[in-house]
Amino acid sequence: MLNKLLNQSGKWLEGEGPYGDIVISSRIRIARNLKSHLFCHRAAITELDDIRKKIFLAASNNEYLKNSLLIEVDNLDQIDRRLLVERHLISCEHAEAKKAGLVLDPKEMISIMVNEEDHLRFQVLESGLKLMDAWRIAEQIESKLDTELGFAFSTDFGYITSCPTNVGTGLRASALVHLPALMMSNQITSVLKAVSQIHLAVRGFYGEGTHAIGNFYQVSNQVTLGHPEEEIINNIEMVTKQIIEHEKKARELLLETDRAMLEDNIYRSLGILSNARIISSKEVMNLLSPLRLGVDLDIIKDVSRKTLNQILIRTQPAHLRKYAGKELVAREADIKRAETVREIMNL
Amino acid sequence: MLNKLLNQSGKWLEGEGPYGDIVISSRIRIARNLKSHLFCHRAAITELDDIRKKIFLAASNNEYLKNSLLIEVDNLDQIDRRLLVERHLISCEHAEAKKAGLVLDPKEMISIMVNEEDHLRFQVLESGLKLMDAWRIAEQIESKLDTELGFAFSTDFGYITSCPTNVGTGLRASALVHLPALMMSNQITSVLKAVSQIHLAVRGFYGEGTHAIGNFYQVSNQVTLGHPEEEIINNIEMVTKQIIEHEKKARELLLETDRAMLEDNIYRSLGILSNARIISSKEVMNLLSPLRLGVDLDIIKDVSRKTLNQILIRTQPAHLRKYAGKELVAREADIKRAETVREIMNL
Repeated sequence: MLNKLLNQSGKWLEGEGPYGDIVISSRIRIARNLKSHLFCHRAAITELDDIRKKIFLAASNNEYLKNSLLIEVDNLDQIDRRLLVERHLISCEHAEAKKAGLVLDPKEMISIMVNEEDHLRFQVLESGLKLMDAWRIAEQIESKLDTELGFAFSTDFGYITSCPTNVGTGLRASALVHLPALMMSNQITSVLKAVSQIHLAVRGFYGEGTHAIGNFYQVSNQVTLGHPEEEIINNIEMVTKQIIEHEKKARELLLETDRAMLEDNIYRSLGILSNARIISSKEVMNLLSPLRLGVDLDIIKDVSRKTLNQILIRTQPAHLRKYAGKELVAREADIKRAETVREIMNL
Repeated sequence: MLNKLLNQSGKWLEGEGPYGDIVISSRIRIARNLKSHLFCHRAAITELDDIRKKIFLAASNNEYLKNSLLIEVDNLDQIDRRLLVERHLISCEHAEAKKAGLVLDPKEMISIMVNEEDHLRFQVLESGLKLMDAWRIAEQIESKLDTELGFAFSTDFGYITSCPTNVGTGLRASALVHLPALMMSNQITSVLKAVSQIHLAVRGFYGEGTHAIGNFYQVSNQVTLGHPEEEIINNIEMVTKQIIEHEKKARELLLETDRAMLEDNIYRSLGILSNARIISSKEVMNLLSPLRLGVDLDIIKDVSRKTLNQILIRTQPAHLRKYAGKELVAREADIKRAETVREIMNL
């Protein structure tokens, strides 16, 4: 069932959308629970099975979700579950959860994790900075499913979730940003610090904090309670735009003051990435960062953002294993990864 | 006058000749002095001028040398003198010597330094392992010039030279070898040690000993006295062939046991060399080594040895400056060098 995923990458990775040169994607996640059932960690297997059946049925009646795949995650083999994790469609915990389910639209933009920490975790992904658009879609789907399924809600607290940090809106909104110039000009630490002071979280998307692999950062809200959804989302969009401004200025300054160094960095990354015969996942991500910057700055003209995103996704371990059709020991994976990079780049 | 040198590289760098995959070149050097004149370091300027005139005249009457350039090295500007040093046609000392002269055949295979340490230093260069051939040519030229000029000779010691280490044959024979596989497999130290025990010298051609830049080594005789020339040359050829055998076995072993690592190393070097926008001379040489190995092993098919040799010669500082037609400060030279590499590779 997952084979069709292999030959595509999510529409959110096409590299389009507003501020696409800095913002990779916008993500809305909403946590909900059925009021008629126990929370996942209290429910027996049969109840979890019931919950999944109800949600799958409701999804298949929903106009946004009617073409979606309804995946019984616990019936997938290890590789397919890792594949979904690598695509950011399910979490590591969800891959191991009892009666775990996934509702997945074929473009990978809309998905619902079933029986993770909460009964439902809606996720809507968009290319570029489009948090409000993603929220509108999430809201409509959620509203229809609420009518059918009945979500747990308290007039005092808002939506009830398994973990108190999600109570209220159940909303986590985040933007995935790429900040190579702030890193190169040593400004990243001060920018991250400023953002964390206004109660937003900025985390390395891979790796942590200032040692983020590939210079990817995720800007998201820390608080879900006491603010309307639009306010939370507007706040993140505003701060993300400020970060974008800083990154843009840092890019302009690098171009003005040390274009040769910048181009050297970009082209060497291209040279290594397109020629290596053995390469680790971490090195790929670290090389993709200057290369993406080169594409953004129109220095590299014959590589597209979509190509870079495909490399990012398809060179992960489970993807490599799935393509190879067999287990790969460490060195084999590094060889297969280098082959895959060249294949995606049409070399 | 030297401009025509710029657009060629010596015929000895065409990368042909026996054992051309390991031996870059063979070099014969003979030191001679005119018996009718004082040694250079004792002679007055006017005498040095006389010496140069006599030698230039004799050279223009010699059938091997009649098309040669007759260059008054002391009248060249700083850049042109550096250019000749970088081409290994004159020594650093010679570039600064009084009334220094150079007889240079247009293919850069035969040359005579005039008024270096000795009145004449013949040099014959060949591609690959061809020491005996080079010696035959040197011998014939020397013999004709001896008849005309009269070289200082003692029946007890042989040819008399300015420095006692050259007395006797006045001969230095050397082979320039490229030993990347012995380096990669950590065998280089033991091979160098074995060779030095049989009274031959092995030196890094750039850099010294086991830290030779670019894995280039020069095998040469240490003793010039008490052995006929043919014996000295046969000895070096024999030892060089043994080194070649060791290097070949090391290459085969690498191919068998870790081809992926080897290819990774080779292709990464190609990737960096053909993409860098800023690059130092040392880095170029260190990247050329695995790339040359790749060409030798037929892993890299669209780059020739001649191309690699051109890069080696033309990316040196004085060559870059000469092409640029102006002084280059450090960063500019590194940028120009990267451009030159891509130009030579037709990128």
